[in-house]
Order: sequence, then structure tokens, then C-alpha cells
Amino acid sequence: MPVTDIATRVWNHNWRLDPIVRSLLDTDFYKLLMLQMIWLKHREVQATFQLINRSTHVRLADEIDEGALREQLDHARTLRLAKKELIWLAGNTFYGETRMFSPDFLAWLAEVQLPDYELRRVDGQYELRFAGPWTHTTLWEVPALAIVNELRARAVLKDRARFELDVLYARAKAKLWEKVERLRDLPDLVLSDFGTRRRHGFLWQRWCVEALKEGLGSRFIGTSNVLLAMDNDLEAIGTNAHELPMVLGALAPDDAALHAAPYRVLEEWRQLYRGNLLVVLPDAFGTAAFLRDAPDWVAGWTGFRPDSAPPIEGGEHILSWWREKGQDPRTKLLIFSDGMDVDTIEQTYRHFHGRARMSFGWGTNLTNDFRGCDPAGGHMLEPISLVAKVVEADGRPVVKLSDNPAKATGRPDEIARYLRVFGAEGRAERRVEV
Amino acid sequence: MPVTDIATRVWNHNWRLDPIVRSLLDTDFYKLLMLQMIWLKHREVQATFQLINRSTHVRLADEIDEGALREQLDHARTLRLAKKELIWLAGNTFYGETRMFSPDFLAWLAEVQLPDYELRRVDGQYELRFAGPWTHTTLWEVPALAIVNELRARAVLKDRARFELDVLYARAKAKLWEKVERLRDLPDLVLSDFGTRRRHGFLWQRWCVEALKEGLGSRFIGTSNVLLAMDNDLEAIGTNAHELPMVLGALAPDDAALHAAPYRVLEEWRQLYRGNLLVVLPDAFGTAAFLRDAPDWVAGWTGFRPDSAPPIEGGEHILSWWREKGQDPRTKLLIFSDGMDVDTIEQTYRHFHGRARMSFGWGTNLTNDFRGCDPAGGHMLEPISLVAKVVEADGRPVVKLSDNPAKATGRPDEIARYLRVFGAEGRAERRVEV
Repeated sequence: MPVTDIATRVWNHNWRLDPIVRSLLDTDFYKLLMLQMIWLKHREVQATFQLINRSTHVRLADEIDEGALREQLDHARTLRLAKKELIWLAGNTFYGETRMFSPDFLAWLAEVQLPDYELRRVDGQYELRFAGPWTHTTLWEVPALAIVNELRARAVLKDRARFELDVLYARAKAKLWEKVERLRDLPDLVLSDFGTRRRHGFLWQRWCVEALKEGLGSRFIGTSNVLLAMDNDLEAIGTNAHELPMVLGALAPDDAALHAAPYRVLEEWRQLYRGNLLVVLPDAFGTAAFLRDAPDWVAGWTGFRPDSAPPIEGGEHILSWWREKGQDPRTKLLIFSDGMDVDTIEQTYRHFHGRARMSFGWGTNLTNDFRGCDPAGGHMLEPISLVAKVVEADGRPVVKLSDNPAKATGRPDEIARYLRVFGAEGRAERRVEV
Repeated sequence: MPVTDIATRVWNHNWRLDPIVRSLLDTDFYKLLMLQMIWLKHREVQATFQLINRSTHVRLADEIDEGALREQLDHARTLRLAKKELIWLAGNTFYGETRMFSPDFLAWLAEVQLPDYELRRVDGQYELRFAGPWTHTTLWEVPALAIVNELRARAVLKDRARFELDVLYARAKAKLWEKVERLRDLPDLVLSDFGTRRRHGFLWQRWCVEALKEGLGSRFIGTSNVLLAMDNDLEAIGTNAHELPMVLGALAPDDAALHAAPYRVLEEWRQLYRGNLLVVLPDAFGTAAFLRDAPDWVAGWTGFRPDSAPPIEGGEHILSWWREKGQDPRTKLLIFSDGMDVDTIEQTYRHFHGRARMSFGWGTNLTNDFRGCDPAGGHMLEPISLVAKVVEADGRPVVKLSDNPAKATGRPDEIARYLRVFGAEGRAERRVEV
């Protein structure tokens, strides 16, 4: 005799909304590390973030209902950090350090809510913008992406029969476990989940994280998702992102200050953080330019996260540079997180094994790989290349060059100026899958 | 915030036993059809059934705890048919016929409980016997097998971690669905579930049946499991089994009566049933002998279920015989149910398509195919060839010859006598997998 919990059943039927984002900690850890720096050093900066769908063949405004999107965004705006979340941020150890976040910062953070948004339909896409203080708009990046991606999956699966769904998730679980079994063959693997923003859904990301925890043991070092880190007693993983050099570059009063901006970011960063948090993201305006002009002290940092060059080519470039600077790469850390999957993780691991320390941030292909899993066939569940980028800072246009022009953002005239300042050395167009 | 139904949780923690068999209808339909005939015509016969593990390399008494086995058997003995089950048996249409079971029979059935059992450990195996009136002991066959098979799977999975189990069932679901997708390519397929006795577990069989219902639509005609047929509004499928000619053969006073026993079974059967229930199971004492000596009226029956010859060879044999008897095989039915899986179903379907009507009873490889699914590796979840056979009737030894000597049962001296009476024509030893 099946026992039904009548109260739960009735409650479930009364849901006005099944919220996608239910906690402000359901975001990437680096947003909090960066936020503390933004709050300390750039509290007055106004920054606008905007959703950019690089997969233009997918017409998001046709797939996702605008009312549903607004409901989810509105719901996220109601959230504040819970007391237990603040206590955890204050009391937990991050990267081996206690008191990573200052009491003043946390007291301020306790009051933060997501700011308003602007949403318009343009040409089958959503123009979704977040304007306001950088200290607030920066927090929209990850939840906005997670909401749009999950709404897309929900729309595809809305009318599916029960067994289609059952088989879909069975196949996806089996598929992920095949990957886990392959990754087990890499004895010194260091892997973390970077898949929050592009995830199929929150519950699926949670399953993936729990599966990696059980399947990979100590090879799985943690997750970028702060909420999942807290709930599963995992390390919260992450350092910094392109928005720091992008905004500081945009605010630079002249070309010389623009040229210095990426190093100024690192100077500010090292005033706040140390150890494994001293990781350079070198490609905002091209890795070749960054390395060519970097001060010597940058070579003393713990590692690099090459984020738009192919992993082996990008890693070799950094290894050569370390050697030039008299550093032993075997003591250094390379973090690979750009569109990785098991094949590229294996290749990269084998290539650099014994030559440098490595860590892999596994994103979209961890938390949103349903390719070949849909009993109905088709490609509707395939992930798209959706980002939320800062596009304006204190009214000035923001630019990213990247090592891959397909990932560049910004006004064409500004991109041209940045290319004059930094040069185009080493940039090569590559298809962006995810 | 997860909502926990506290009452259910506490109730679950108080389970003394998680019963494997929870209804007397959790059995194969043919047991009820045969039982009505046994009750009408052989009510006084005493028959002993015994568990026989043909997979002798599997030491069941080492794998399964004796206390747990006794608890499950004891629990099954407490069961009686529920009122709604009796009403359904009385009111449902089976094989297009109303009132398949007589009111007198159902009134008697309402009181039936499973009789006592004898359980001993012998040489790493369980000697499990059911002695008593044939009308009662016959009902033990399916639940006894289902209990032992599920206890075996439970023992293997007892100490597994949560994700190992999750991945195991995800893989098994994905595996079955691949089979479903292949079977969809056979437009005139007629398939039913025959997997109760060898199932991995009741819940898994239920999932399989529901998956076939959704995945195959009208190609899936029903299930041999009476309970699942009732609960899912499916047809209950099945006709008769070897125990009828085996017991009537054993009771035969002399060799001539023994030789006539298989045909006497059919005579009794056709007094009770008609249409698609007129299916001959020809191999109890060898198909060649059966066909060679069969009265002409047997060729008028609807179909045959060749159960121990390879399907194409066995089917061709019957087709030739029908033609000899002036029958058009295209109007006739072949039922294949001996160790079938997708490969053999496809081959057999293609071979006979357009030449005879066909129906497939899919058993062990439907409800217990976890090969390659266990994240822990190994072969512990592979199905074994476990049967429960009648071994004694009114104190006389019972024999089955089969077309495959590996499936023969009985005392060697009696087997020798039967071989003298029926001949050994057409018998060939073949490996029994399941």
C-alpha cells in the first residue's frame, strides 16, 4: 500500500513557482572573492552586465516564456543570505585559510539583494541587462545564466511522458558514470566542478557533484558552487574572472593605464589573497601580450588559468614563460577550465603529467551533457554558449579580447583600440562549443 | 526545504521485513489456468515441487541467509487473495473471454494459502521442497523462484553505496531502453513479459513492464504476471506448462498410458479453454516424439510453444509438421519463450515473418539483465538458471525429458524408461544460460 504524504502532495500542487535559484550562495565562489575586492577597492563603480548568447542559431525568446523568465528573475531578487549561510562564510576554511571574508564585508553582504533587471525581446533573443553598482550587478552573472539555461531545459521537457524523462536521466547518469570511470584511471587527477552557470538544472548539478564525490574520492577537490560546497562539505573552488581586468581596463584614463590594468588587478588581488588563490587569468586582452609585458613578480604567483587557448598550446606557452623567468614549472599550477571534457582532460593530463601541477575545472560538459540521451532524439537539450559579460563601467565601454576572437566582446572601435594597445599576437579564431 | 513525511519515515524504520511477494496474484497467469484444470480433474493428486539450481557454480546457501529466506517464505504463506483480486479474476476478460474462471473455482481459491515447505542446506545449495496437494503446491513455483532470485540480488546489493546503486539502475534502465528502441523496428512484433520467476526484483519487473507499455505501445500485448496485469490494465498472458504432462505421465499405470499422457493433457485442456489458449507445449518428453505420434486434431490447435529447441530449428520443425497435416502455418501461432533476448527475437522474427504468426514471451533477459551494469564489476548480479519442478506425484517419480538433455529432470532409471517409451529423436544438449 503506497503511503502518500497528503500535506506534501497538496503543497506541491499549490506551487506558484518552482524556483531555480533558491539561495544567494547558489553561485560561483569566485564571485564572492571578487566581490570582496570590488567592495573594498571599487565600491563606487557602476557596472552593467548583459546576457550574450553566442549560439545565435538558438532563439531563446522563442524557446523560453518571458513570463516564466521574469518570475524566476523576480524570485531571485527576493533572496538574501540566510543566517546560517553567513555563519558558514565566516567560520569555514577556504583554501586552507580561516576568516577569508572580513566581518565588515559579511555585515554588508548580509543586506545585499540582487538589483533590478531590464528585459526586452530583440530578434528572437532576450536582451537582459543588469545596471547599477558593480558590487550588486556582479552577483547577477551566475544566477541569470543558471535561470536561462534551466528554463530552456524545462521548456524542452515540459510535455514529455514519464518514461521518456526516466530514460533521459538514466542515460545521463550512465553517461556521466562512464566519464567518472575513465577519470579514475588518472591517478593524480585534481578536478573540480565549474558547472553552475551552464547546468541543465540545480538538481542535476547536485547529482553530478555527489557522483563525483563518491566516484572520484580525493581526486575531486570541490565545487565552484558555494551552496553545494556548504551542503556537501566540499571545498569551494575558484579565484577570479575576466570582469576584473575588463572593468579596470575600461576605467583606465589612457592607453598606458589600460596597458597596466591587468597587472593592477593582480596587485590588488595579492593584497587580499595568497597561496592557491594567486592564480593569473592571463587572456582578457591576449595571453601573449600579458606574458610579454608582465612584471617579474607575476612569475612568483602560484599558477595560471589559461581560459581561451587550446589547453596544451596554452599550457606550453605558460611553461616556456615560467622557465624564461627562472621558475620550475613542476612547482607551478595550471588550471584548465575552458570547455573541458574527458577527452581533453585525459590528453592534457597526460601531456603535462610530471611537468607541472594541474587542476581541472569541469563545467558545461559535466553539468549539461545530455547529448545522445534524449529518447525523443534531436538536439534541443544540447548546451549553448551563453555568457553574461560586463559591457559598461561608469558609462565607458568594456572590452574583452581573449585569445580567441570568437570570445571577444565590446564595441568594434574599442576592440580596435585595445588591439593597438595590446597587439594581436597569438590570437586565433576557434569554434566555441560551450 | 525538503519536506519529510515523518509518519512514513518512522513506519519505514519499523519494518520487520520488506516482503518480496505481497499478493498471491504476483504469479504467472498460467498457474491459475492450470490450477482450475487441476482442481477440476486432479483434485486428489499429491505433488511435490522442488527447487533446482542448474547453475551449480552459484552456491545459493552461501549467498542467501537462511533466516531471511524463511522469513520471506513464511510471509508468502500468510497471503490470501484479496477481495478486489477475486472480483477482478471474476470480472475481467482474459483472452477475449468473460468468466474464464468458474464461480466455484474462485470460491475455493478465496480460501487458498500456500502450504508448508521443507528447507535444508545441502552442499552449499538449498534443498527447498513443497509437498502436499497438487492444487496447493503448484502455487509455490513462481513465488519461491521470485523470492530466491530477489534475495540473491538483495544480498549482492546490501552494502552498496548510494551512487553505486543509482548508477546500477540508471545503466539497467538505459540498457533496457536500447532494447526497446531496437524492438520498435519490428513493426508486427507481438511481445509479452514472462519474467516474473527470474526477475531481479518486483519493483524492477514493474518498471520493465511499464517501460514496455510506454515504449512498445500495441506491440506489447501484456504480462504473465497477474498482479501487474491487473494494476496496469494489461492483458494477463500464459497458457500451460510442463507440469501437466509430467504429472499425468508419472501417474500413468503403464507405458502405453505414459505414451498417451501428453495428448490426454490436451484433451482435458480443450474441455476448459479455447481460442488462443489452445497452445501446445510439445517438448516435455521430446518434440519429435510428440509430433510423430500426435492425433490429427492436435494440428487444429491455435499454436505451439517450442520451449527447449533453438527457436528457428524448433519453429521450422513445427511448420513442417503443420504442412504435413494440411494446415497453413500462416494461420498458426508460434510462441517463443525460451531464453529469448533482443538478438534472438530479431532473428526469429525476421526468419518467420510472413510465414507464421508469432508471439514472444520475454523472460529473464527482460527482467534480470544487469550484465555490464554493476559499477563494482563482477558477475554477482547475473541471472542463474533456477527452476522449481514437480518431482513426485502420488509417490511416483516425475520425469521431464525436454529437447535439451541439460533441462531434463528425474531419476536416471525413470529417464531411461521414458527414453524407451518416447525415443531420443531430435534431442541435443545445449548450454542453458537462463
